Amino acid sequence: MSDKPQTLKGFRDFLPAQKAARDYVTKKLQTTFERFGFAPLETPTLEYASLLLGKYGTEADKLVYTFQDRGEREIGLRYDQTVPTARVLVQYQAELPKFFRRYQLQNVFRADKPQKGRYREFRQCDCDIFGSTSPLADAEILAVYYFAFAELGLTQLRIEFNDRQTLMAMASPFATPEVTTASIIQSIDKLDKNTPAEVTAELTAKGLSAEAAAAVLAEVEKAEMSDNLKQIEHFARQLGVPAESLVFNPKIARGLDYYTGLIFEGRLPEYGAGSLGGGGRYDHLIEQLSGVSIPAVGFGIGFDRTVEAATELGLIPNLLSTTQVLVTVFDDQPASLDSSLQVAHQLRAAGITTEVYPAVDKLGKQFKVADQKHIPFVVIIGEAERGAQQVKVKKLATGEEQLLSFDALLTYLRT
Amino acid sequence: MSDKPQTLKGFRDFLPAQKAARDYVTKKLQTTFERFGFAPLETPTLEYASLLLGKYGTEADKLVYTFQDRGEREIGLRYDQTVPTARVLVQYQAELPKFFRRYQLQNVFRADKPQKGRYREFRQCDCDIFGSTSPLADAEILAVYYFAFAELGLTQLRIEFNDRQTLMAMASPFATPEVTTASIIQSIDKLDKNTPAEVTAELTAKGLSAEAAAAVLAEVEKAEMSDNLKQIEHFARQLGVPAESLVFNPKIARGLDYYTGLIFEGRLPEYGAGSLGGGGRYDHLIEQLSGVSIPAVGFGIGFDRTVEAATELGLIPNLLSTTQVLVTVFDDQPASLDSSLQVAHQLRAAGITTEVYPAVDKLGKQFKVADQKHIPFVVIIGEAERGAQQVKVKKLATGEEQLLSFDALLTYLRT
Repeated sequence: MSDKPQTLKGFRDFLPAQKAARDYVTKKLQTTFERFGFAPLETPTLEYASLLLGKYGTEADKLVYTFQDRGEREIGLRYDQTVPTARVLVQYQAELPKFFRRYQLQNVFRADKPQKGRYREFRQCDCDIFGSTSPLADAEILAVYYFAFAELGLTQLRIEFNDRQTLMAMASPFATPEVTTASIIQSIDKLDKNTPAEVTAELTAKGLSAEAAAAVLAEVEKAEMSDNLKQIEHFARQLGVPAESLVFNPKIARGLDYYTGLIFEGRLPEYGAGSLGGGGRYDHLIEQLSGVSIPAVGFGIGFDRTVEAATELGLIPNLLSTTQVLVTVFDDQPASLDSSLQVAHQLRAAGITTEVYPAVDKLGKQFKVADQKHIPFVVIIGEAERGAQQVKVKKLATGEEQLLSFDALLTYLRT
Repeated sequence: MSDKPQTLKGFRDFLPAQKAARDYVTKKLQTTFERFGFAPLETPTLEYASLLLGKYGTEADKLVYTFQDRGEREIGLRYDQTVPTARVLVQYQAELPKFFRRYQLQNVFRADKPQKGRYREFRQCDCDIFGSTSPLADAEILAVYYFAFAELGLTQLRIEFNDRQTLMAMASPFATPEVTTASIIQSIDKLDKNTPAEVTAELTAKGLSAEAAAAVLAEVEKAEMSDNLKQIEHFARQLGVPAESLVFNPKIARGLDYYTGLIFEGRLPEYGAGSLGGGGRYDHLIEQLSGVSIPAVGFGIGFDRTVEAATELGLIPNLLSTTQVLVTVFDDQPASLDSSLQVAHQLRAAGITTEVYPAVDKLGKQFKVADQKHIPFVVIIGEAERGAQQVKVKKLATGEEQLLSFDALLTYLRT
């Protein structure tokens, strides 16, 4: 190890408090996904590079970590969860059920320039329904997306949604050989962050006439929900998504070209840092990736931002320590050591998270370690306590001490 | 994607039933580790290659996945969890508490020859206590190891343990310039699988005299527990480990040279496939890896074998589907669709895992999909049911149908 051990730039260690917060969020997401019938899937970290490259364009290809292994195979690290899932859909076609719903929570790797909030290894969290073109599936996706955040307490989530077909219909009449429909839509996508004047300027810079640029923006301004969106919204409400969380926004375009219908993004008014991820319907992508035609609708949640939002809004319980009790060691006498170990065993058997102090030290020093570890209670069993078949418990925050029977200790710790 | 999409040799997809079984085992292990005060840690998948290489000898170095990234840095994939943890212990020395206990459950990568039960990406599951030389820490480690398996129902676990110091004391008098103490211990380690004659032959082939080889084996035969082991065993029993699960075995040596005291391995009499992992005390390794002297005791559980053992012994519940109910869609009438969605929402709000059939199909086809997905119940809401404010529930295994109010449905599904 070098003198100054370090992590690679763009990569992170998660020390216990952070890791526990991430595990807490993971568990809430998993619980919701499973409540909606989504099944877990895991794919390998490494794949053939040929599977990963050429799927999302040349810019994305530069971000895929690829290398040659000792067998001279060209391999690459997971770049997203959609491409491996497309492989799974084809490879296990006979085993997977109709209307397969899967969730996937794994790390992906991007050889991107690290910057604030952007990492080279980060967690993705995807849910998708495969095989259905029905707006019922779109609504199920909106509902599981909403309730995943609601389960975390982020009930104020606004799902801004739009229809890619509407955008196409609005933009295509203005497309020219120089300015494609997709390019016009990419400019519309910026209306949320930029002023109409800025977007008009961008469109004319691309080659649109001033009149056409103005007309496009006017179309967007007066756009209404498509019948498809009306039905999806209605279904999502029946599934319990509050009306105020479903916000039609004709300016939402989502960057990726592959969407074919519903598109959506989640935002929290209380949290400034932008979209918490989103998704939509992509009925042709799986065919493009795998050669097998399977319609799909789904989303990816920005895991890091979700953890950050839930933390900032005080929705993650105190996880500095999951340990409730440190059982101290009174002295080096066999009876003292045995009592401490036996009490620790009984506490654990009763479901109380417990550590034994693994040394013989002055009690004050043991209290300090409990404090440093953010353990709220210490238990002391000296000769007097042992004789009386009692234990002493001390609440470190207040210094308050109590002499209790073991049963009373359990009651005390549980309340 | 190539015509035959495939995973790399030695890598695995985990489809829902397998992934759910692994998640089930993971959760049981985590619960136990946290009950014993172990805190979760996560380190990056990629590290500087210089951190990973030269740590476990030249043979191991060949198994580390290394490559050059676009920034021409030599990087490598996580090979184990001990080396990154040693880095963490030094890098965050000021932040980590005294007697730090951590668990880590991440995948590691070995460019090994794939064979039955050996993979290139697999999950490791480690627990360690850092900073204590006390046998109390050794006993805590044996106890959390035992209870991790017990939580899964693998209560018949036998922990075979030994003391590396005893082995050293037995072997060193027979060591020669050609046959080191470590080499003699490596031969002793084979006494569990090979006959004494075979091990004697190996020792003489290495260069020991026939008398010396016989004397070594005689020493092993009559070896007794060290005082250190006696104390650890006594403490582990106070912590609730059954006496019959603690088996002194003077032939256990553990392959790795770095152990300095207690060494142990777990086995299940009902499960033939060998050790479920093990560990021991390694008071000098962290210093060798990181330059900072920190005594340590811990273990690594063989995650794949543990899943396999628990599955074989029928200890993992049926996880073919976590979904309890498929709410069918009676027809394409708005009232039918709304009812199905509303009932699905109510079921989910009551904690019942529920899918909505995402299409309008004949009921028989919907039942077939439920069956294919291993969902035990289907709910049907036709016009008659809607009029009577009831729902029909059908148990697919028996064909039994009931007409129930929503509240009665909840009671029925919960029992």
